[in-house]
Amino acid sequence: MSVLGVYGVEHASSLIYYGLHTMQHRGQEGCGMVCVDGNGQMKRHRGLGLVSEVFNEQKIAAMDGTMGIGHVLYTGAASRGLDNVQPLYFHHGSGDFALAHNGNVVNSELLTDSLERKGSLFHSHSDAELLAHLIKKDNPDEPRIFSIIEALKQLEGAYAFLIMTKNRIYACRDKYGFHPLSIGKLGDGYVVSSETCAFDTIGAEFIRDVQPGEVVTIDKKGIRSSFYTEPSGCKCKMCAMEYIYFARPDSDIEGCNVHAYRKESGRRLYYEAPADADIVVGVPDSSLSAAQGYSEASGLPYEMGLIKNKYVGRTFIQPSQALREKGVRMKLSPVRSIVSGKRVVLVDDSIVRGTTSRRIVNMLREAGATEVHVRIASPTMTHPCFYGVDTSTLEELMLARMSVDEACKAIGADSLAFLSYGATLGSAVGRTDMCLACFGGEYPTPIYQKIEDANK
Amino acid sequence: MSVLGVYGVEHASSLIYYGLHTMQHRGQEGCGMVCVDGNGQMKRHRGLGLVSEVFNEQKIAAMDGTMGIGHVLYTGAASRGLDNVQPLYFHHGSGDFALAHNGNVVNSELLTDSLERKGSLFHSHSDAELLAHLIKKDNPDEPRIFSIIEALKQLEGAYAFLIMTKNRIYACRDKYGFHPLSIGKLGDGYVVSSETCAFDTIGAEFIRDVQPGEVVTIDKKGIRSSFYTEPSGCKCKMCAMEYIYFARPDSDIEGCNVHAYRKESGRRLYYEAPADADIVVGVPDSSLSAAQGYSEASGLPYEMGLIKNKYVGRTFIQPSQALREKGVRMKLSPVRSIVSGKRVVLVDDSIVRGTTSRRIVNMLREAGATEVHVRIASPTMTHPCFYGVDTSTLEELMLARMSVDEACKAIGADSLAFLSYGATLGSAVGRTDMCLACFGGEYPTPIYQKIEDANK
Amino acid sequence: MSVLGVYGVEHASSLIYYGLHTMQHRGQEGCGMVCVDGNGQMKRHRGLGLVSEVFNEQKIAAMDGTMGIGHVLYTGAASRGLDNVQPLYFHHGSGDFALAHNGNVVNSELLTDSLERKGSLFHSHSDAELLAHLIKKDNPDEPRIFSIIEALKQLEGAYAFLIMTKNRIYACRDKYGFHPLSIGKLGDGYVVSSETCAFDTIGAEFIRDVQPGEVVTIDKKGIRSSFYTEPSGCKCKMCAMEYIYFARPDSDIEGCNVHAYRKESGRRLYYEAPADADIVVGVPDSSLSAAQGYSEASGLPYEMGLIKNKYVGRTFIQPSQALREKGVRMKLSPVRSIVSGKRVVLVDDSIVRGTTSRRIVNMLREAGATEVHVRIASPTMTHPCFYGVDTSTLEELMLARMSVDEACKAIGADSLAFLSYGATLGSAVGRTDMCLACFGGEYPTPIYQKIEDANK
Amino acid sequence: MSVLGVYGVEHASSLIYYGLHTMQHRGQEGCGMVCVDGNGQMKRHRGLGLVSEVFNEQKIAAMDGTMGIGHVLYTGAASRGLDNVQPLYFHHGSGDFALAHNGNVVNSELLTDSLERKGSLFHSHSDAELLAHLIKKDNPDEPRIFSIIEALKQLEGAYAFLIMTKNRIYACRDKYGFHPLSIGKLGDGYVVSSETCAFDTIGAEFIRDVQPGEVVTIDKKGIRSSFYTEPSGCKCKMCAMEYIYFARPDSDIEGCNVHAYRKESGRRLYYEAPADADIVVGVPDSSLSAAQGYSEASGLPYEMGLIKNKYVGRTFIQPSQALREKGVRMKLSPVRSIVSGKRVVLVDDSIVRGTTSRRIVNMLREAGATEVHVRIASPTMTHPCFYGVDTSTLEELMLARMSVDEACKAIGADSLAFLSYGATLGSAVGRTDMCLACFGGEYPTPIYQKIEDANK
Repeated sequence: MSVLGVYGVEHASSLIYYGLHTMQHRGQEGCGMVCVDGNGQMKRHRGLGLVSEVFNEQKIAAMDGTMGIGHVLYTGAASRGLDNVQPLYFHHGSGDFALAHNGNVVNSELLTDSLERKGSLFHSHSDAELLAHLIKKDNPDEPRIFSIIEALKQLEGAYAFLIMTKNRIYACRDKYGFHPLSIGKLGDGYVVSSETCAFDTIGAEFIRDVQPGEVVTIDKKGIRSSFYTEPSGCKCKMCAMEYIYFARPDSDIEGCNVHAYRKESGRRLYYEAPADADIVVGVPDSSLSAAQGYSEASGLPYEMGLIKNKYVGRTFIQPSQALREKGVRMKLSPVRSIVSGKRVVLVDDSIVRGTTSRRIVNMLREAGATEVHVRIASPTMTHPCFYGVDTSTLEELMLARMSVDEACKAIGADSLAFLSYGATLGSAVGRTDMCLACFGGEYPTPIYQKIEDANK
Repeated sequence: MSVLGVYGVEHASSLIYYGLHTMQHRGQEGCGMVCVDGNGQMKRHRGLGLVSEVFNEQKIAAMDGTMGIGHVLYTGAASRGLDNVQPLYFHHGSGDFALAHNGNVVNSELLTDSLERKGSLFHSHSDAELLAHLIKKDNPDEPRIFSIIEALKQLEGAYAFLIMTKNRIYACRDKYGFHPLSIGKLGDGYVVSSETCAFDTIGAEFIRDVQPGEVVTIDKKGIRSSFYTEPSGCKCKMCAMEYIYFARPDSDIEGCNVHAYRKESGRRLYYEAPADADIVVGVPDSSLSAAQGYSEASGLPYEMGLIKNKYVGRTFIQPSQALREKGVRMKLSPVRSIVSGKRVVLVDDSIVRGTTSRRIVNMLREAGATEVHVRIASPTMTHPCFYGVDTSTLEELMLARMSVDEACKAIGADSLAFLSYGATLGSAVGRTDMCLACFGGEYPTPIYQKIEDANK
Repeated sequence: MSVLGVYGVEHASSLIYYGLHTMQHRGQEGCGMVCVDGNGQMKRHRGLGLVSEVFNEQKIAAMDGTMGIGHVLYTGAASRGLDNVQPLYFHHGSGDFALAHNGNVVNSELLTDSLERKGSLFHSHSDAELLAHLIKKDNPDEPRIFSIIEALKQLEGAYAFLIMTKNRIYACRDKYGFHPLSIGKLGDGYVVSSETCAFDTIGAEFIRDVQPGEVVTIDKKGIRSSFYTEPSGCKCKMCAMEYIYFARPDSDIEGCNVHAYRKESGRRLYYEAPADADIVVGVPDSSLSAAQGYSEASGLPYEMGLIKNKYVGRTFIQPSQALREKGVRMKLSPVRSIVSGKRVVLVDDSIVRGTTSRRIVNMLREAGATEVHVRIASPTMTHPCFYGVDTSTLEELMLARMSVDEACKAIGADSLAFLSYGATLGSAVGRTDMCLACFGGEYPTPIYQKIEDANK
Repeated sequence: MSVLGVYGVEHASSLIYYGLHTMQHRGQEGCGMVCVDGNGQMKRHRGLGLVSEVFNEQKIAAMDGTMGIGHVLYTGAASRGLDNVQPLYFHHGSGDFALAHNGNVVNSELLTDSLERKGSLFHSHSDAELLAHLIKKDNPDEPRIFSIIEALKQLEGAYAFLIMTKNRIYACRDKYGFHPLSIGKLGDGYVVSSETCAFDTIGAEFIRDVQPGEVVTIDKKGIRSSFYTEPSGCKCKMCAMEYIYFARPDSDIEGCNVHAYRKESGRRLYYEAPADADIVVGVPDSSLSAAQGYSEASGLPYEMGLIKNKYVGRTFIQPSQALREKGVRMKLSPVRSIVSGKRVVLVDDSIVRGTTSRRIVNMLREAGATEVHVRIASPTMTHPCFYGVDTSTLEELMLARMSVDEACKAIGADSLAFLSYGATLGSAVGRTDMCLACFGGEYPTPIYQKIEDANK
């Protein structure tokens, strides 16, 4: 998921459109935006599908003004449907407001129960609706920033929220800074985005990250900072998977470029787990940088042994089981003339269920690879994530169920190795900490009853 | 454009669907298929848009049977619209038939005039409709292969046709073999495809190429060969741009893998035109292989300095001029942290109008590149192509209007160099000839009045 | 607007689909349904547009079960958009529930303010969301019927609500019975509908009307009745416009058939306001019955002097002003050969803004009518309605601004006459009371600040 | 089917749009138009579906100019699909042209065979494509009117063609004048239409009908007339079903208004077949005029005993057999309170297969009608039509298979009577002849092998 806000710039709705488009890799299920149009009216449009499908020129023109917030949605199966597409938009006597959120609040059930007991009624299961109930101003004379700060104090977990009223945008980040949220400058206005690659697309310049535990207020006076927790209490546990898998290679996360991170992790992967082979092949697209790093460190040629079909859209029809067994496959094809007769180092970013790895190894062997050595540019993923990565049960995680040796056999590889913790952390040069909970189980926050649910 | 035929295999319509999908890079404007369904009825579905948009499961199921032909369309502005979407389908007393075509017939106007004078009437401007008029059997007792052969004798130019009747598929290739057409085996049946990458996708095995000047008949007796010209008269002038730009890296064209060709051309490009630089960057997607070759030969690191937004679909909205001037750009983004402060070798496959090159050079400089050395993995394109590549006027070709030095200034590069003829030919190891007309003006066929039209 | 509920009958979602379709004349802006599917899960689908556009076979099949409620939406401009399409659907710890509503609550702003002060947060401006907040059970041990009854006691105005939990449907009607709500039997199950014409369509049999002030509970024990007010306190103020304009001629409202009512009103209209003319023409479709009554009473022939284009759908393009001035008109055409040279009695159901009447009179004159005598089968509409009819401001009502004589001139008629109060009431044979507020301003309920708003 | 042409009037594409819309009742399967845009380019848009679905403002604006032709399509099952949607559009050395057609050519197979032998190739089975092959100019110096006239001499059957070149529209009608085609004046330009109701809609004034056997040329010189046959040879055999069923009540066909015809036929029907009953009910929409005539002549009250659901669109889902048996029915509902306890005269326009009549009689009985006397305002339909009405086989015609008494039993009526030949003809006051072939088998033209096909 990702959020994007624009304040004080003409054609805000167009800019949000292009910016969301740039972050489409973070969620393809739905998207939306709420803008304040030229007449000062808040307008919303949202829908299921890609940014290019949900919006058209008329819809963007109809919401044109100088401020707005947008969202692209990635969801698990539980919460599909239009009601969960953000931004959410609320009417309230103290002023309408809109919300967009990236992340996952871990104590949402407790808070929801408590609110229901006090009289709230929910349309959706989203964290954004929960926050909306917490921040509505029951006392109209109180500044909204107070109610936001009181609300955020109650939330535990990973979140990066944008809240928009008719004349302000508030950008909030949880106190561990699990997910990125950056501020850019564009002319006299501001842009807030989950990834910095959106700044490049819309011509904005990076200023700084929203800090863990910070609420940045953006209005005509510029940007101001508030903290809902002791700034010193923040631990900066950036999600390692943002570097490893989620973000676009041209984004910088807390000062470290994602492509550079991945290339460095590929380098370190070679030093920790060299392979006697002929060529290095990366799984497109997210593992190409790591494969290049492995190639450079090893001196083995980096080859385009797998091709991704870039036209596979949402409306694409999957081959039936019968057709798959006959060898019909889409999305990813091996390049026979490259891999045939070769000992291949296959670099991938991570192993979750293991099914993709098994399929790719098999594909390469069928295309004539004599050996396939799998190298994973992250540690063994053994624990579920409750902060926004959709791996909800232990049962699904291959490396939670079996050893590396067993996994190697299961995916049919000649050898299998993972990057160490230290190298995973160290590849983000200069960082001293990250959230590696999915690799080691050390959850930075309390996780309530979720771990038992995940074990079911 | 590309054509695909399936004979004698269950779920032919599904296989054509997946195969066309694999060749989507050869044309995004429209696509279609004609299949013989389970009741022996020919059925057609076609539409404007991507394969995944035009077809759905119901439509594919409705045409399911054991044979069919399909097409993806690439057109210039002149011939847009549903009427030009192939396969074409004709009713005739001697039996219905369907046609799909890749290429460009150069004497089509002469033949059309002549047919109109004899009483024909045309719905479209397509070569396929022209061929249909030439091959309809005026004598119902004569085998159709005779009328096909007589028809092909009259066509001059580049073509790869599939013709389907209710019980046969005919695969024809012009006598210069400008465009590829290959035969694969799938179970007891056959597949004919413009690119071999479709074989891998649908689980077929490559057998051989249709030869220049050959008509291959596929029916229940298997495959048989006819020639409409002296086989010895064929000159094997494969279009160099198929290797350089059109084909997918995992396809093999006349025995030579496309990725391997491109990588070798990048290698030779370094030897012919080295650059004193820090990193090598390729323009995604078609120039990545050549850039890797340049990197390996030069020892300079290959870096992902440009990112392509893979979600830019047909329905995407282009930024207005005003927004573009503000720096809003889509499709391609530079990776600032990679190119900043670096001397970049930018490898591209070819320069046509030069506008893209100028934009990319400018983009890299804005992202901080200190020098940009452009290296093109093909010779200077100075002549229009009449065989299927859409560069219709001399005026549009940058290198027809100016010298390399002038072009270097025009695109704002620090240096600019092109691959030599010899290296272009030599990169396809073992080939002795190719069509290089767009680089040198030596057209293998007569070109009638077209060259005057192009000079207008 | 209309509501429809089905309990205890197979294929409930299909039946709701057909039933809503039958009531499409009550609202074309949007529609939806919430059903309990075969697994006991509540599922919702809703959308903007006609029933036949919003639903398809897959969507209906996906919600198939034995109970559900549906809605078709008619709205003024203020509240367009998907968020207002009903049924609304809520998640709550005490059990999920859905709501559909026909009517207009007059004290909604007061209640909303009060709820917001107590901590509620609203997504929409709908009465249904207001009711939802009022009836959610804060004490899970209390039967829901208690919270419904407490809630309804607070609502003032016109309403006919359906509330569905996983195992019950509650049907509620306001204590004046402004809008109809009837119960039918279908096999072992029940149907509740705003109009009885839906019963005929889906094969159900009318049992009785929900009574003013009654809440009917439908569950596996059958139907049970509760009253939230003294039954004797109910005044039976059925909206006269239901008879005059809204309902379908084949529906019965409180025992009186709508076509029969209209025909009788046409009869009485002739006795009260005869015209010296040649033919009687009704404005299709709602005034045809009254025109027949006028024709029968007068002995003048009833003629089809106006034709309605029945293919004018939602996606139809209106002629531009320039084209309209040139005489381009859609929807309604005069039949020249019928009206030419004739003195026409034009019967219409009501005059609101007067623009349609003026256009039709003009149209008939252009088609050659020598005289046009307009007869309206209802009294002069002089007051805004706050109970569900969309005539929100006094300024818009022609007969609030001018006398009958002035109106006659304004619409260009030769004479103009309206039905009396007494005849309007008396046409519903046997009824002793109705809400005639829009004709006389005697509002059965308090109307708070609305009358001032309407005068603005 | 219907055709519409506009010449010499601004906003021609808009006018055609509104005009086609008015004639939507003549065909709902597809529609299209070809217009000459402001740059003198012919442009076509066509599609499957209603006029309001196929066109939108952008598409109409893109073809805007001062001339064009349009078509709405009604087809039998044999020729569905986009290829049969007209106007057809042809490219030819002697000038591009477009064609639109209403009717059915009876010697099309013979002519097609003959043309194929001479070298023609067909994309579709339409008469329009056949005509196109006949009229293309093989000698470019010959005026096109000559080739049109030569072509029309060869066609046998019913047709009303519009042919458009870049600067002329030709309007042709077969020599029996089976189907109507009228000319109107609009400003300085002209309109040609299958029905005059389109003139009223777009503000044109009726001038005269195209005469049987006439070709009217419309260009900047005005309108000129040519005949391809001896004018005296024409027999004026207007299709009786145009009056009885096809046309809109507000159209005039050869000077006789359709509503007036139907009302008169209802009158005569009463005189020929009175019934002892309480009320008269017409089947909506086409039989309402005849029912009114019957009512007036008999003195029995005309009642709205059947209601048609006007929102039943193309996308509507039919109840399954199971649901139909449970009593679920759409499209047509009986009005219980009107028909209950009554002896009903049910007036319908014709009986083809008899299934609809049986269903309606049954519906009325279930709604409480004590007797149902069916009166048909046309003779017994005993012969297939080959001129454009889709009743292709004898087997399908109820009255070809059984006597009136048997048919009365089969549909469950208490009595059944049909209008006589004489009264059918006489209702069109002043006409001396009509085509009544479907009632008596006297086909005005040779019908080749079609009658044997129909007997199969």
